[in-house]
Amino acid sequence: MTVSESIIPTEITSKEQAQKLIDEHDNFLFDCDGVIWLDEKLIPGVLQTIEYLNSKNKRYVFVTNNSSKSRQDYVEKFERLGFKGITKDMIYPTCYAAAFNLKEHLKVPEGSKIWVLGDSGIEDELREAKYIPVGGTDPRLNEPFDPHHELLKVDPDVRAVVVGSTKDFNYMRIALTLQYLLHDNKGIPFVGANIDRSYPSDGLILPAGGSVVNYMQYTADRDFINVGKPSTTLLDVILEHSKFEKEKTIMVGDTLYTDIKFGIDGQLANSLLVLSGGTTKRYFDSFLTTSYKEEETRSMTPLCYIESFGDIIDLIN
Amino acid sequence: MTVSESIIPTEITSKEQAQKLIDEHDNFLFDCDGVIWLDEKLIPGVLQTIEYLNSKNKRYVFVTNNSSKSRQDYVEKFERLGFKGITKDMIYPTCYAAAFNLKEHLKVPEGSKIWVLGDSGIEDELREAKYIPVGGTDPRLNEPFDPHHELLKVDPDVRAVVVGSTKDFNYMRIALTLQYLLHDNKGIPFVGANIDRSYPSDGLILPAGGSVVNYMQYTADRDFINVGKPSTTLLDVILEHSKFEKEKTIMVGDTLYTDIKFGIDGQLANSLLVLSGGTTKRYFDSFLTTSYKEEETRSMTPLCYIESFGDIIDLIN
Repeated sequence: MTVSESIIPTEITSKEQAQKLIDEHDNFLFDCDGVIWLDEKLIPGVLQTIEYLNSKNKRYVFVTNNSSKSRQDYVEKFERLGFKGITKDMIYPTCYAAAFNLKEHLKVPEGSKIWVLGDSGIEDELREAKYIPVGGTDPRLNEPFDPHHELLKVDPDVRAVVVGSTKDFNYMRIALTLQYLLHDNKGIPFVGANIDRSYPSDGLILPAGGSVVNYMQYTADRDFINVGKPSTTLLDVILEHSKFEKEKTIMVGDTLYTDIKFGIDGQLANSLLVLSGGTTKRYFDSFLTTSYKEEETRSMTPLCYIESFGDIIDLIN
Repeated sequence: MTVSESIIPTEITSKEQAQKLIDEHDNFLFDCDGVIWLDEKLIPGVLQTIEYLNSKNKRYVFVTNNSSKSRQDYVEKFERLGFKGITKDMIYPTCYAAAFNLKEHLKVPEGSKIWVLGDSGIEDELREAKYIPVGGTDPRLNEPFDPHHELLKVDPDVRAVVVGSTKDFNYMRIALTLQYLLHDNKGIPFVGANIDRSYPSDGLILPAGGSVVNYMQYTADRDFINVGKPSTTLLDVILEHSKFEKEKTIMVGDTLYTDIKFGIDGQLANSLLVLSGGTTKRYFDSFLTTSYKEEETRSMTPLCYIESFGDIIDLIN
């Protein structure tokens, strides 16, 4: 595929373009890390742009592949950063998507034990869905690996495995999770919170949860169910809950292979790449001029892009 | 591909077959874990079978994808387990292969710093090859991850990255290694010690070094140079050093996608799968009856198999 045959994304640089982008869409799906904030730091102008959306009666939800925090944690983070009126039902982190998937798609009965490789967000959402998380933040998992550790006896009551991002990554957790993934001739469902390779944080590029999922997939030699973006199953859930119409909805994100692909695979009206997160202008330019398989390129090429979603309010005013 | 079209491996069960296997080959390449030993436990009969090879003036070397121990460490392990006359030049662990590759193929100058994610075996072999290992077993890497840690400043003098197995896996090590892999627009050579998914140990299946390499490949989104089996580059080095003739050489191993593929891709005379390690009879049977791409199946199907290499001496006597 050459550049001339491909979609050329439009850069949003004028008041008219920015106004049209807002006017044409009733609903906005936002990624969080790299779009709304970087760690605990709000991206300049984003709060004001979202307040502008409020004033225009636009509706929006947040869809993040980060599984470390529960929806309640996110509600508190939004409040801390000055947002008003963000409620739990407006937030879709993959810890929630994992619990939802276990219940609605895999039909794992309430009261089942679920093995967790990941942070407290997964445990919290599993508990809220009436599951019993095991593993996860259990302090015994911080001990050095010991092949005779009591935890290495697989609990036969565990009904599924959920893997997400955690900085508390160690051999004990990995070895234990492998025992569950191999159990019952690899018959236990394996849910992965996301496929993200890395994310920007503190001026660094750091390993993301998808790398943990990928590690477990590789060592266990089996596939997983991805409940994060770009999974269209997740989009179906959001559309059903929020009653957003696809043809009036735009996806806003900073990552081509998760956010933008999510919007395009899901046949939303539009997709906006922001360059305030993990995708640099340099990388984006090189992506657009590199030959990939045509279908793959199309599914990751946004219709438009902007330096930051926070720039919208400056352009409009 | 159906079973009828494929090679049907012969099970070695009689004295005649065992004798022929020994008589027909001058040279033997042995994997170690699961073939010679399981952890610190010698597999029964293996020492006696190798002593029989000695009595017949057969020559042999050991080729292991385990990078945790240096050749000197292996010499000591062989002695500890009762083997006589095993010298450093008969042992090819991937920590040695990594150092050799840096010097002979990548032409990294002596005296260069090399970033290590892995155990002391890699550091020892790098030092012996006149490199300066950094990272590795540095105790500061056991500290909790801190984005402002002094080590997160990339040392511009580092000339390559070597990744191998380690149980001291943590976010600090992973995050740091990622900084080096992304450095210089991903220009720094990335050597991986192996592609092994898992290995048998203490009655468990545990994650192996290839999973760590795969993690780093995924998070950095870049390829690596595999210096372990089935890399034919490694075989070339062994054949050159040992002066073994391919048509008189057999590969003995317990893993289809590394050991057996190594022998077949390398066009050795023969390949013997042993079931004393990571491959069960059940898995092997299912491999033989599953349709894969024809070329891929052929490259992993041994000509013969036996429960354990230690059974040879029992059959012969």
